[in-house]
Amino acid sequence: MKAYREMSRDELLQEKRVLEAQFEEVKAKDLKLDMSRGKPAQAQLDIANGMMDALNSESDLKCESGIDCRNYGVLTGIPEAKKLLGDMSEVPADNMIIYGNSSLNLMFDTVSRSMTHGVLGSTPWCKLDKVKFLCPSPGYDRHFAITEYFGIENVIIPMLPTGPDMDMVEELVSTDPSVKGIWCVPKYSNPLGITFSDETVLRFAHLKPAAEDFRIYWDNAYSIHHLYDEPENQDFLLEILGECVKAGNPDIVYKFISTSKVSFPGSGVAAITASKRNLQDLEKSMTIQTIGHDKVNQLRHVRFFKDMDGMHAHMRKHAAILRPKFEAVLDGLEKNLGGLEIGQWTKPRGGYFISFDSLEGCAKKIVAKAKEAGLIMTKAGATFPYGKDPKDSNIRIAPSYPTPEELAIATEIFVLSVKLVSIDKILEEKE
Amino acid sequence: MKAYREMSRDELLQEKRVLEAQFEEVKAKDLKLDMSRGKPAQAQLDIANGMMDALNSESDLKCESGIDCRNYGVLTGIPEAKKLLGDMSEVPADNMIIYGNSSLNLMFDTVSRSMTHGVLGSTPWCKLDKVKFLCPSPGYDRHFAITEYFGIENVIIPMLPTGPDMDMVEELVSTDPSVKGIWCVPKYSNPLGITFSDETVLRFAHLKPAAEDFRIYWDNAYSIHHLYDEPENQDFLLEILGECVKAGNPDIVYKFISTSKVSFPGSGVAAITASKRNLQDLEKSMTIQTIGHDKVNQLRHVRFFKDMDGMHAHMRKHAAILRPKFEAVLDGLEKNLGGLEIGQWTKPRGGYFISFDSLEGCAKKIVAKAKEAGLIMTKAGATFPYGKDPKDSNIRIAPSYPTPEELAIATEIFVLSVKLVSIDKILEEKE
Repeated sequence: MKAYREMSRDELLQEKRVLEAQFEEVKAKDLKLDMSRGKPAQAQLDIANGMMDALNSESDLKCESGIDCRNYGVLTGIPEAKKLLGDMSEVPADNMIIYGNSSLNLMFDTVSRSMTHGVLGSTPWCKLDKVKFLCPSPGYDRHFAITEYFGIENVIIPMLPTGPDMDMVEELVSTDPSVKGIWCVPKYSNPLGITFSDETVLRFAHLKPAAEDFRIYWDNAYSIHHLYDEPENQDFLLEILGECVKAGNPDIVYKFISTSKVSFPGSGVAAITASKRNLQDLEKSMTIQTIGHDKVNQLRHVRFFKDMDGMHAHMRKHAAILRPKFEAVLDGLEKNLGGLEIGQWTKPRGGYFISFDSLEGCAKKIVAKAKEAGLIMTKAGATFPYGKDPKDSNIRIAPSYPTPEELAIATEIFVLSVKLVSIDKILEEKE
Repeated sequence: MKAYREMSRDELLQEKRVLEAQFEEVKAKDLKLDMSRGKPAQAQLDIANGMMDALNSESDLKCESGIDCRNYGVLTGIPEAKKLLGDMSEVPADNMIIYGNSSLNLMFDTVSRSMTHGVLGSTPWCKLDKVKFLCPSPGYDRHFAITEYFGIENVIIPMLPTGPDMDMVEELVSTDPSVKGIWCVPKYSNPLGITFSDETVLRFAHLKPAAEDFRIYWDNAYSIHHLYDEPENQDFLLEILGECVKAGNPDIVYKFISTSKVSFPGSGVAAITASKRNLQDLEKSMTIQTIGHDKVNQLRHVRFFKDMDGMHAHMRKHAAILRPKFEAVLDGLEKNLGGLEIGQWTKPRGGYFISFDSLEGCAKKIVAKAKEAGLIMTKAGATFPYGKDPKDSNIRIAPSYPTPEELAIATEIFVLSVKLVSIDKILEEKE
């Protein structure tokens, strides 16, 4: 393929006419497609349907410590759920508190608690003139929305192939006491799909923050969410809590996980992993906040998955559904955009997203164009703080929800939209 | 029975010797009994065991609006759950948001949100020098704990047989702009077991607060939790949201309910009822806080109870279990303490508690004495803000958890403890 920029004005206009005809054709189909969110497909819900039978009225509903899961009691989670999610998080069960159905809610509450009560006795953030969070971008819009909601200043940190730009992170964290946290999706990151390198993790563990209440918000949402079964085709992430302990920095990290994309998205179990001191701080507020989370659902998860082997086996079923979808999109991008030099994209080996970078100033127009033909993409800019992508080029592609047939058409619409918008930009430049 | 105060010193000493012997006898049994918390008994969990079969892998897991309950989506609750809990709360489904498993968590979040974001655009409470909450007392310790946790000043309001002292409430609410809320358990109240009179509810609805962000926290935890099946033996509570609307005061109240003591205490569904404006305010933060609560559990509740008739029928089963327990305690109190003039107690027709008032300055000693013989009571003072009962006389009795046999012994221990501590006090007075 000849790169678009190398085409003459006439060649581009000719190409545009062909593409416009194709676009009108697909638009006429009046489709409704959605690649906007990392939402599992129905087939992924169906493979977990055994969850619904894991407990019934004949089941022993006592947990290992003898407590009846139906009743009040057990604030921080039943032992077997701590064991299972501890294994999932690669930490001892003792370093874990089980929460409700949403790790987002847990992260929200963690920021909220810091606002009203500080961290381990520090000044509550609501009493400070300025609080900042570092936001490796492109990143997860709902993370950035939490800190924005609390009036915290979100600071963009560029993402490199190894993770966040650690030179910049170290500089800001060590010199600016108003920097209180950093949002991270360290494995199969949202939306890039990359995994932080060992060096990046170690540099995180060795941070020397100016603020005693600085914390790394380590959202390991896709820890076991590989697309390929062979270990050599899977990413590996260094376990951070252990590295922080080794570095003499045990309190610096909160690690979040959930089964939202393992069992059922709306009815999973979330958990936080941290040092004992941090967990005690959390427990102090949990004791006031609730009598306890849903233990029956915790028990349901343990009875269904049994152990990490069971969970990994289940994740391979997810992978079997997701892999062809990712490959369909990636193939479509490669086949239709390869060599045109109007976009770059990532090729993740896990997680829920492909990240696409268009020519500068084109992302919003591409998303709008796709919408004309009935394809909903994540809002352009959403992957940056305040929804503002400085280059207006990043687009998050979420291939999980549509069927493979829908994905083929969705990719076609997306590719046409990228081409049409890019041609307009290049034509403008040539004027 | 002769009142203790009318006995001579010798009569009292003789009585004391007899009681001490009885106390030693029961103490020697080395019992472990718990009347400290309003925790349902196992028999109450068992009657709801059909919950565990309400859904299985063959069930249609779509809600009425066609959404798959297993997946993400539906922030404010599935329509059929809003209908059922709306009926339970006596309000239209539109005035309701369904939450997670804990109404306490919902109340905590409501206060927390007011701290960081204010109420409908008012100044966040964390920016104010002073925020006060009115605490009708004796009341629910976990309510008071929430406001205490946020550094809010808890102000005692005396409880009358008709509900809180409304003269005092009206005076404080209408003149002091730092008064931002009041905690209420309006029906079968915790711990008194009384229900607010129509006049009290109407006076609440017509409050004219000095603070625009003043709210009534109306925790209708025991709305359908009658001990008797006949309507003439049940308390009636005027529905407050409708009365507030009529009074031109629609935004003044948040109403909370949950199924914690209907289905399973740890795995129920909680909800908030309020004006549309208040709910919109809540939704704004919910959108940031979570992708949604557990819809499968919402569906499970609707499939199990079907409608309010189903729920009422289920509550009659609870009543059949609880009623004899309440009666056993009340009989024991009447039989052993009647006429002695060393204590007064309430005779509730619903809810989870009996409230006992000892002679002044005796409650802590009675609870400590009971503990000597292996009976755990709610900590004396717990029913007042900061755990400080100014008269040291209120003790909350929770008869739900022990078996009837255990309750008989527990009441015996309690009664002995009351008598022994009271005799000491009267002897001291006579010196």
